[in-house]
Amino acid sequence: MAGKLRQTKIEALLGNETAFRVARRSYQPHLCPRLAAGAGSTRPLDGFDLDVIKVAREQLPFVSKNTLLKIIPDSPSRQVTPRRLGVVLSGGPAPGGHNVIAGLFHAAKRAHPDNQVIGFLAGPKGIVTDKHVEITADMVATHLNSGGFHMLGTGRDKIDTPEKMKRCRETCAVLKLSGLVVVGGDDSNTNAAFLAENLRGIGTQVIGIPKTIDGDLQVPGLLQIPFGFHSACMAFATEVGNLNSDCKSDLKYWHFNRLMGRSASHIALEVAFQTHPNVILIGEEIEEKELTIHNVVRLIADVIVDRAREGKNYGTILIPEGILEFIHEVNVLIIKISYIIARYNREATEDESFHKLSFEEQVQLIDNSDIWRDYDSRVFLGFPGLLQKGLLLPRDSHGNFQYAMVNTERILLEMVATYLRKQKAKGIYKGNLRTQNHYYGYDGRGTFPTKFDCDYGYNLGFAAYSLLANGATGYMAAIKDLHLPVADWQPIGIPLAPLMHLEERKGRLELVIAKQKVDLEAPAFKLLEQERRKWSLEDHYRFPGPIQFDGPAADTKPITLQLNSL
Amino acid sequence: MAGKLRQTKIEALLGNETAFRVARRSYQPHLCPRLAAGAGSTRPLDGFDLDVIKVAREQLPFVSKNTLLKIIPDSPSRQVTPRRLGVVLSGGPAPGGHNVIAGLFHAAKRAHPDNQVIGFLAGPKGIVTDKHVEITADMVATHLNSGGFHMLGTGRDKIDTPEKMKRCRETCAVLKLSGLVVVGGDDSNTNAAFLAENLRGIGTQVIGIPKTIDGDLQVPGLLQIPFGFHSACMAFATEVGNLNSDCKSDLKYWHFNRLMGRSASHIALEVAFQTHPNVILIGEEIEEKELTIHNVVRLIADVIVDRAREGKNYGTILIPEGILEFIHEVNVLIIKISYIIARYNREATEDESFHKLSFEEQVQLIDNSDIWRDYDSRVFLGFPGLLQKGLLLPRDSHGNFQYAMVNTERILLEMVATYLRKQKAKGIYKGNLRTQNHYYGYDGRGTFPTKFDCDYGYNLGFAAYSLLANGATGYMAAIKDLHLPVADWQPIGIPLAPLMHLEERKGRLELVIAKQKVDLEAPAFKLLEQERRKWSLEDHYRFPGPIQFDGPAADTKPITLQLNSL
Repeated sequence: MAGKLRQTKIEALLGNETAFRVARRSYQPHLCPRLAAGAGSTRPLDGFDLDVIKVAREQLPFVSKNTLLKIIPDSPSRQVTPRRLGVVLSGGPAPGGHNVIAGLFHAAKRAHPDNQVIGFLAGPKGIVTDKHVEITADMVATHLNSGGFHMLGTGRDKIDTPEKMKRCRETCAVLKLSGLVVVGGDDSNTNAAFLAENLRGIGTQVIGIPKTIDGDLQVPGLLQIPFGFHSACMAFATEVGNLNSDCKSDLKYWHFNRLMGRSASHIALEVAFQTHPNVILIGEEIEEKELTIHNVVRLIADVIVDRAREGKNYGTILIPEGILEFIHEVNVLIIKISYIIARYNREATEDESFHKLSFEEQVQLIDNSDIWRDYDSRVFLGFPGLLQKGLLLPRDSHGNFQYAMVNTERILLEMVATYLRKQKAKGIYKGNLRTQNHYYGYDGRGTFPTKFDCDYGYNLGFAAYSLLANGATGYMAAIKDLHLPVADWQPIGIPLAPLMHLEERKGRLELVIAKQKVDLEAPAFKLLEQERRKWSLEDHYRFPGPIQFDGPAADTKPITLQLNSL
Repeated sequence: MAGKLRQTKIEALLGNETAFRVARRSYQPHLCPRLAAGAGSTRPLDGFDLDVIKVAREQLPFVSKNTLLKIIPDSPSRQVTPRRLGVVLSGGPAPGGHNVIAGLFHAAKRAHPDNQVIGFLAGPKGIVTDKHVEITADMVATHLNSGGFHMLGTGRDKIDTPEKMKRCRETCAVLKLSGLVVVGGDDSNTNAAFLAENLRGIGTQVIGIPKTIDGDLQVPGLLQIPFGFHSACMAFATEVGNLNSDCKSDLKYWHFNRLMGRSASHIALEVAFQTHPNVILIGEEIEEKELTIHNVVRLIADVIVDRAREGKNYGTILIPEGILEFIHEVNVLIIKISYIIARYNREATEDESFHKLSFEEQVQLIDNSDIWRDYDSRVFLGFPGLLQKGLLLPRDSHGNFQYAMVNTERILLEMVATYLRKQKAKGIYKGNLRTQNHYYGYDGRGTFPTKFDCDYGYNLGFAAYSLLANGATGYMAAIKDLHLPVADWQPIGIPLAPLMHLEERKGRLELVIAKQKVDLEAPAFKLLEQERRKWSLEDHYRFPGPIQFDGPAADTKPITLQLNSL
């Protein structure tokens, strides 16, 4: 009997179910009153200028006619024929995605018990190749409030050729989908607009959902932040806050932290307000002030020197992963080198390709190019070896430079260390530089969603259903006024066409949704400018702690969102 | 008025106080009944054999006589003369340290309102140089249940010379300390034993507190785990669990994770039970099985090949930071190279020192040494460049190899990738290897303590006070039966002398407390052996989530602790 009890205990300890997951599943996400009341109706929402550029009107003649909608409650009308809806997760995982599916599923089942939701597997290629499962109440209950995109998987493929579009149309037609919900970032929502245009003929409406931890999918006044951003930032803030704590205890390390987030610095800005680091770089500011990489190095080194003077040989530094893109001199070299590599590779066999050459041969080849000036060489040779090698890294399949592959934090660390050695020799720097470098990205992307993102994702799923039920297509579901309590959230439909602009992709201009960078005129950045001197010298560290789901610390929202809405 | 409200809101958002910290401070740590009853008495605890080696009896004649004690409640005796006690934090920060101070402080004030606790600043050198503050009720309330060692700072200096010992004695005499509590790992507790022996004459009793996130300070049957281990492991497990989640969503990366923890693999083992990764390396097992580094590479690569066969090109791998020490062939080279460097540097000027030489010159110098055999060269040259360079890294001030400085995860990643390229050419490996590497250490070390570590640290502080009040010196305060509820915890005093053995340090044998490695015969490792095949192939991931302080997931304990006590 004792042996049996022991065995039961061992099994409980070795299982992959935890008290934590059980508790998370039991949380019932809050629904705003407008969505709680039923699928409701849509009405025009006035007061916002949303212009569509000419190219968009040409390429998306139908969905370009969409106007901004709000979803309002009305007396429930009985749905007669069951609908079948599809949903696909696209791009990197973001916390809250499972709740979008849960919201869509619950809204569909509420409207008619025979409504079905079909989930496509491993991203958009699941539509092209028709790999799908029918989503069940059990699947939804299992994944509710959990992180990642496990339920269906995800992928980065785009539906970007007529052939793929045709196969999507076939899949949707065979499955008789009356609606398709695309959960993704700027590119996936671009895809949603083209799908909406193309699937119109077979009666499949398409709605996009704003997802990305990077936070760069925004529509001023309408979409403050996509889902997933808050959770990822809180996970990174936990880590950086813990490093603050370590700094102030051990008193001897400078921690250089690179944070995921592509080119825009939204994540770094939010994590800065969460943790009050000693140095924070904002790519958009570096661009506006036209700082060189040596300026950036000085900016960091000066704080280290100032703190050393007060006996503080420790600190934390936040570096957005896309920072190099904003440093003009670096960006120019990246573009030129990308061009030289592409031109060379077109003529070369696989075995001779640029990345099979030695470093010296690569530099020689670049030096010999007609677009490479002496000035470029001087700038290039002035960079440390790590950055030189970084600039020559393999381009992606579209020929684009892969910022995330460069260990920017180590490059800056090395350059700062070199600069400080000279300052030390001159007697200006009297400290002792010991460093640690970190990259936080995938770990935060995979976190459990905060309660904010649980609620947000769930409401987005319901809003998507409402838009579909009301005949909308070519829209992004969104929640207006996220800074207010859930009771005051306003579900809306943002037309996709006005969000689009022309951008160079694969060497030609393409119609895509514009990424939003950090607004240097908005309150959040202005307040950062006001606070950061204090953060740099005092130990004004903020310790947000791990994400909480119960107790008084469970109800949080992005600080930048709150500041910008004041 | 609206402007004023806005300003108040902004100030709240920009402050470094959070709802989370307020909530943490309000938690009242649980105290076991034996300590809740008062300082109590000490009695011998029988049933454990604790032998003292001859060298320890010679070097520590007084404290070697100590025998194992238990603390039991008795009728409270009134303390007449106020005491003054000192406390010092030593070595790397560990979550729960502030609660040790809080426990000591509250126990002291309970015994007599005029008792004082003096905190030495920035580690043991604070005693040597007499840098201290008097700890106040406010300081304790502010830091209760918070992470790090902010309250006093910490340092790694040891009191290891007669001169330093003399100055400590002076400090303790001037301050009239009747007791000194040393919070630290194996080396700090070694120091505590020598301090106890040396401060006997001036009436300062010394008590050690078992602290280290590495988990390698254990006494079988008496001290299951030091404080700080659980919190750090939970922080790492959050991160690895999030990577599991990312894996299962994005379906394309192998994550190589190096975990802090010095030589022993306790942290990796605990994090493995918390997360069920696809591959877990245990240094102690590698040593026992005499695996070469190529064997270890095979061990990882085979799982990657097997999973690729099932279409799973993703997974998580845990690598303890001390792994190289357990690979015999690597360890031999490390020892030989350390010896060659030390001998060379003794004759060289600062400018000629080994680490100023080029890589080629370093290799030449090693090759020419009389202790370097042809076989060593063959092994060395068979290693990838990253490992070769790692082996030549600067030694610490004691001439020791610095394992934490080697990017072991990147070395293994590179070797695995090379091996798999060959397997792919042979058609055996059909997958696509995309990798990410991570090092988790400082971020977990600085986390807020779990409720377990909050309670544990607090009880240790009370236990230390009880031992001091009962005249004990040369002991480590400990809590027996940590796997049971707090109500059943047993405060004890473990004599320090029997924990000591002889170990080579700075080239000579020294008397130090022995580090405890992972016990390959204990249930935890046996169960790992049983489970890991399943973890490697199935996606049996466990997602522990962020550390919780409220709700059903707040009461957790180390899984290895629970398994080993069944």
